[in-house]
Amino acid sequence: MSGFVSFVGSGPGDPELLTLKAVNRLTQADAILFDDLSSGPILAHAGRSADLVGVGKRAGRPSPRQNHVSRLLVDYASTGARVVRLKSGDGGIFGRLEEELVALRAAGIEYEIIPGVPSACAAAAAAGIPLTRRLTARRVQFVTGHDVTGALPEDLNLAALADAQATTVVYMGIRTFAGLAELLMANGLPPDTPALLAEAVSTPDQRLDHSTVRALADRLATQDPGKTPALILYGSLAAP
Amino acid sequence: MSGFVSFVGSGPGDPELLTLKAVNRLTQADAILFDDLSSGPILAHAGRSADLVGVGKRAGRPSPRQNHVSRLLVDYASTGARVVRLKSGDGGIFGRLEEELVALRAAGIEYEIIPGVPSACAAAAAAGIPLTRRLTARRVQFVTGHDVTGALPEDLNLAALADAQATTVVYMGIRTFAGLAELLMANGLPPDTPALLAEAVSTPDQRLDHSTVRALADRLATQDPGKTPALILYGSLAAP
Repeated sequence: MSGFVSFVGSGPGDPELLTLKAVNRLTQADAILFDDLSSGPILAHAGRSADLVGVGKRAGRPSPRQNHVSRLLVDYASTGARVVRLKSGDGGIFGRLEEELVALRAAGIEYEIIPGVPSACAAAAAAGIPLTRRLTARRVQFVTGHDVTGALPEDLNLAALADAQATTVVYMGIRTFAGLAELLMANGLPPDTPALLAEAVSTPDQRLDHSTVRALADRLATQDPGKTPALILYGSLAAP
Repeated sequence: MSGFVSFVGSGPGDPELLTLKAVNRLTQADAILFDDLSSGPILAHAGRSADLVGVGKRAGRPSPRQNHVSRLLVDYASTGARVVRLKSGDGGIFGRLEEELVALRAAGIEYEIIPGVPSACAAAAAAGIPLTRRLTARRVQFVTGHDVTGALPEDLNLAALADAQATTVVYMGIRTFAGLAELLMANGLPPDTPALLAEAVSTPDQRLDHSTVRALADRLATQDPGKTPALILYGSLAAP
């Protein structure tokens, strides 16, 4: 008796940014594995008998080991359950989806992936800006600001990242942005490139702060990073 | 009497990938300006008295001038209407959003931007792959394969695009991919880098075709590009 796992991108936080398909899968689920405490209003779509299982972490807190999550997924599905694995934003973007897919394949469990609204898209929308511009911003890139140890990755493509003609969105980059910005400016990114810090996008706690790469780096170098999920956008489109 | 414009990302095509907020705005709209013929099931959410105005183009057909669309938006909103401007995928990604925002600002008309599921995310989800991988694909980028004339843009950042460690999604790139691939391979991208051609993503006509950058370029060099919306993904994650 084999269950089925739906990987569901839950969007950036606003429960109205769930897709109809995500709501459908939440409603039908026997078990929902979710990542963080902000899932409250989203989990309201769960049926009354569904198991709600928190497996996530908040920035700065220890997280359950990834293989623990994979094992839980396999264990629930192996009972024949319809399992939803909620991932914030779009699960394919910095959602550590692959480890869990590999575990399900190894166990012979069927799954589907339901895409969601990426947090980066919601941040730009909230700021009233597009991520691309017809003549001057024909590339948008999403990168992560830390490697598995929490430090700035060593193999950064600086020619890609220091490109003022692109729009760049840094995920999980608050702690390392001061160091990243130094590298970017040393590789030709103008210090006055517009930058936007977007916190708790699409939630009641949303904060949008427009500045420049230099000014934001200076501020984040000395500021407690806090625990709020945040993105950093930079490029010409990040201007207010 | 001033109306209000909601820019609504409609997702990749599957009406179940609309967000709850998108459905809400469609239901409430007095007028809906939409881009292409694939909007059928999505427009079913419109109220019976709503004006449905097709303003789009299909690949290969002439499109109404962009300023015509902006004028229509302003004209409808100026009557006090609640206007929805539907954009496929996420409107902030290659949706020519900025021109229309500028026109509304100039006319003093209020607007909101509702993000959607990008076609790139839906293509990866349909193929069962993530767009990022923890250790080896920490950057994902979306680029367009043509400039305003339809040719390959001249100011491509080849160091960014020829990076086998990133996942790259090329929008509107069918006609120019053979030329792009030559440039990428000349700049160090291995010819056997996995590539995925994703057509009509999330619709009943969806086709996913896994190959390599070299093989896909060879095929597209001689093939009629057709009129189906298509994305090209390349990078290690694009493998089947």
